Amino acid sequence: MPLTPEQLADIDASRQNPQPTLRAVAPGMEQHLYTAQPVLDHGFVRVIDYMGDDAAIVQAARVSYGAGTKKARDDSGLIRYLMRHWHSTPFEMCEIKLHVKLPVFVARQWIRHRTANVNEYSARYSILDREFYIPAPEHLAAQSTVNNQGRGEVLQGAEAARVLEVLKADSARAYDHYEEMLSQEGQAGLARELARMNLPANVYTQWYWKVDLHNLFHFLRLRADAHAQFEIRVYAEAIAEMVKDWVPAAYGAFEDYRMGGVNLSGKAVEVLKRRLAGETVTQEASGMSKGEWREFEGVFG
Amino acid sequence: MPLTPEQLADIDASRQNPQPTLRAVAPGMEQHLYTAQPVLDHGFVRVIDYMGDDAAIVQAARVSYGAGTKKARDDSGLIRYLMRHWHSTPFEMCEIKLHVKLPVFVARQWIRHRTANVNEYSARYSILDREFYIPAPEHLAAQSTVNNQGRGEVLQGAEAARVLEVLKADSARAYDHYEEMLSQEGQAGLARELARMNLPANVYTQWYWKVDLHNLFHFLRLRADAHAQFEIRVYAEAIAEMVKDWVPAAYGAFEDYRMGGVNLSGKAVEVLKRRLAGETVTQEASGMSKGEWREFEGVFG
Amino acid sequence: MPLTPEQLADIDASRQNPQPTLRAVAPGMEQHLYTAQPVLDHGFVRVIDYMGDDAAIVQAARVSYGAGTKKARDDSGLIRYLMRHWHSTPFEMCEIKLHVKLPVFVARQWIRHRTANVNEYSARYSILDREFYIPAPEHLAAQSTVNNQGRGEVLQGAEAARVLEVLKADSARAYDHYEEMLSQEGQAGLARELARMNLPANVYTQWYWKVDLHNLFHFLRLRADAHAQFEIRVYAEAIAEMVKDWVPAAYGAFEDYRMGGVNLSGKAVEVLKRRLAGETVTQEASGMSKGEWREFEGVFG
Amino acid sequence: MPLTPEQLADIDASRQNPQPTLRAVAPGMEQHLYTAQPVLDHGFVRVIDYMGDDAAIVQAARVSYGAGTKKARDDSGLIRYLMRHWHSTPFEMCEIKLHVKLPVFVARQWIRHRTANVNEYSARYSILDREFYIPAPEHLAAQSTVNNQGRGEVLQGAEAARVLEVLKADSARAYDHYEEMLSQEGQAGLARELARMNLPANVYTQWYWKVDLHNLFHFLRLRADAHAQFEIRVYAEAIAEMVKDWVPAAYGAFEDYRMGGVNLSGKAVEVLKRRLAGETVTQEASGMSKGEWREFEGVFG
Repeated sequence: MPLTPEQLADIDASRQNPQPTLRAVAPGMEQHLYTAQPVLDHGFVRVIDYMGDDAAIVQAARVSYGAGTKKARDDSGLIRYLMRHWHSTPFEMCEIKLHVKLPVFVARQWIRHRTANVNEYSARYSILDREFYIPAPEHLAAQSTVNNQGRGEVLQGAEAARVLEVLKADSARAYDHYEEMLSQEGQAGLARELARMNLPANVYTQWYWKVDLHNLFHFLRLRADAHAQFEIRVYAEAIAEMVKDWVPAAYGAFEDYRMGGVNLSGKAVEVLKRRLAGETVTQEASGMSKGEWREFEGVFG
Repeated sequence: MPLTPEQLADIDASRQNPQPTLRAVAPGMEQHLYTAQPVLDHGFVRVIDYMGDDAAIVQAARVSYGAGTKKARDDSGLIRYLMRHWHSTPFEMCEIKLHVKLPVFVARQWIRHRTANVNEYSARYSILDREFYIPAPEHLAAQSTVNNQGRGEVLQGAEAARVLEVLKADSARAYDHYEEMLSQEGQAGLARELARMNLPANVYTQWYWKVDLHNLFHFLRLRADAHAQFEIRVYAEAIAEMVKDWVPAAYGAFEDYRMGGVNLSGKAVEVLKRRLAGETVTQEASGMSKGEWREFEGVFG
Repeated sequence: MPLTPEQLADIDASRQNPQPTLRAVAPGMEQHLYTAQPVLDHGFVRVIDYMGDDAAIVQAARVSYGAGTKKARDDSGLIRYLMRHWHSTPFEMCEIKLHVKLPVFVARQWIRHRTANVNEYSARYSILDREFYIPAPEHLAAQSTVNNQGRGEVLQGAEAARVLEVLKADSARAYDHYEEMLSQEGQAGLARELARMNLPANVYTQWYWKVDLHNLFHFLRLRADAHAQFEIRVYAEAIAEMVKDWVPAAYGAFEDYRMGGVNLSGKAVEVLKRRLAGETVTQEASGMSKGEWREFEGVFG
Repeated sequence: MPLTPEQLADIDASRQNPQPTLRAVAPGMEQHLYTAQPVLDHGFVRVIDYMGDDAAIVQAARVSYGAGTKKARDDSGLIRYLMRHWHSTPFEMCEIKLHVKLPVFVARQWIRHRTANVNEYSARYSILDREFYIPAPEHLAAQSTVNNQGRGEVLQGAEAARVLEVLKADSARAYDHYEEMLSQEGQAGLARELARMNLPANVYTQWYWKVDLHNLFHFLRLRADAHAQFEIRVYAEAIAEMVKDWVPAAYGAFEDYRMGGVNLSGKAVEVLKRRLAGETVTQEASGMSKGEWREFEGVFG
């Protein structure tokens, strides 16, 4: 259970006091504010604040004086145009602030997205909770035999049981020792900034993360992708659902041009043209490497 | 007059429709929303949107679940601590979006602050207005004789008149020619992306500019400083007034530690210690250069 | 003539003193160092420094201890893989520093690429030279009738002559007045920071610009593109030629995947699949807008 | 021992092949290239490449055509001026690329400096080495009783022994289990991207890290500071020694204005002025909080 009754009460309190504002309000996002969307076994994502909506993207693109046309259809067409032609600055005019609880090894991938603001819970200053990510059995997978940085089949039987047992026991022991080293009962007590180093990478941390919509889309494209590690992908997917409610037109364009889209090399374009003209093209004749050809066939058969 | 009746009507419309939100609301900032604060002869600054308030800084610093304590005094103490120790990330958790109208030569200084989002009115796509910055007589200053990049006394009499006349006439002629070159009456009409190059640097442009509070403070420290060029300083000062109403505690800390503060070198600290101990220290004995000593004496006499 | 004999002598001196280094050396880039590649009528690009080469990209991707394999073929395959899968960080491990002289209206587009380091010649501190961009007759184009931010046919006859005459005369007059306002002969002399505002956007400025290879590729993709304004495109093309000599494998991958590549939307992928399966698909049935369909047909017919 | 004989041979090979270059060469830095400076028990820092030197800072500040004056004294004065007045862009014109081996909990602090380029060894793709940071006895400190995020006295006797024993045993066990889970002997073998989550934060990772001199100084100011955690401070100190040899004038200015300097609030300036005028000022009369006053007295007595 990621949240204590006290924390849930804090969230409820935050949700019970609507105030009037003159700013752009996205009704789809108001419903998400503060509530925690569970992810993995102890993690969550919750929206703390947001700035802008679909109309704000259009308004910025036009550097306009008013709130923009209220014709959603026109806005949507312009937004698709902006997305298609990589006009990224209007999307930067929307911003979102999230509170995320996540395992440290996921946090280490996440933080590589540099164009964002972060405040992380400090393990120099505070004591971390006893919460560790233990994969559900269906996510306990073997090393992929074809992809050096991916996973393959789900582990079975005794091996799965052994792995789960090891992860649980080592986490528990590491946390017991963390507490023992910190303890000031009958001893000085190790500094928190040192004791934390005994904790494994599946321990949970949390942070406030603030990012603009353009950079968030970039994050989602890489992390909601099928090649992303499952444990970060589920966070990206949870965020994507919120973004869909926040800026539906922008999200629609993103889905079509980025998530559902494909980048073709010049060589791939040539092959497609030849195939459209009725020619049969082999990998050897394509100029592509085997890996590239496999990816190409993965899309176009 | 910076705004047309139509634009003013758009702004009025934007201000007449408060909507409920669960987000943090800064009452001091709501009053500024959308209205144009005049700057220079045709320019303005207006707030389009904002995210967060003083409590949001504290909430992020604590990675807290609720909206934070509502004891403004505690918040203020923590905010001063964060500012004093250069903990910049909590300040990054507030964001502001401005619509600014400004002369091109001011825009060129402004854009050097890279950590911000910008959408500028496109002179490739649209035709610029006939609006040029002509300094008020009291701001028409001679080159400084002591500072290579500053201004000195105000120009007087015939020289002042000549300069004003030149600036006005050249601006008017440049715009006339701009229109003539663009015209499609009886001719093809020059491309907008080319015609614009005839316009001088005092022509007005406009943009949407979005920045987080930490980077805004950095902008204000450099641009509201006495050494900044007057024409950008007045924009910084107009923005500072808004920030004071938005996040009063953070602005107070900024004023004390950054705007009213001083950076001392190790050498300057040594001199101060010796002077506090009753010693008289000369520039020669200080280890400082003449310029540095002059700046030091400018503060401590 | 962009450079004075004195400047050329400085450049020659810089080129006559090779020194030994243990760092990665790119012979193709050494030949470009310091020499000025002319662009437009008074502009230039010249390489001041560079860091890394193709092998450095591979070395960083592998976080290796030595200088990497010296098998150029393997390196090239890995580089193509990195480019194809948007692994951008290894490309960030190469860096280039350029000295560029360019018209102000080009500089204003250029500076929008924020992830770079810039030192611009200061017109607050120094006096600008009497150099203005005047388009060659074949680049003096009319406004495009189909593209709001583009140019169409070349201007002809009397209109072309009138435009050239206006640009030349207004530039000359603006500079005469700039000098007169600055003059301290028999008058105080206007501050440089004010006088500069009389100069039009075709005046030349110059800067040092430093950027990593990943961000440079992003710049080149947008600015060497057929839709970029001609006056910035020629700079991008001049830089692209240098990059080709510096990191030939990386540039080759960039050319194939970015410059010669195409981004397809999910809808476009569907249309291609249906066409490959023998179906005839119309715009109406494609789900694409007319503009999008036109762009799609521009590639695949 | 941080490096294998094979790695040392790679490094030797890299150092035995000087090549001529026309670029700026910093002799003080050439001597450091590639060699590994040991830090902590298994870590190191080594310079892979660098761009620029003291003269390059001056050259960029002047946007000059040649290599700049060769009068080191003038350069040094200008560099001090630039540092004093926060003209940061010329310092951004130097760049350094490092290979660093460091414990994960140090890497997590380090990565918060966003304005840098990073390539980290991938534990999704590769298997980490059996190397863990175990503090030397003199660095095994208790939690500070006055500073929530700092350490106090060194642990003694049985407590110290217990802690060391726990850290060693847990590290060893975690790595044993990591290997067992990965093993494909008689089982499928857990995916590397999952197995790594069992490793504690004192395991070593490594990366290539590239940063400009301005941002490196910012890193050093925060991380070579007495309040930084010891385990990152030793890395900052090792880097500082290299920077001193690379750009001695810039480093000297940094040392005086940043490392040895002090930021005073407006209130602190007032107190100093009153004390210089002979007045005795108490904390109550200073307007400062107790914490602030303590810091102030820490400098000026």
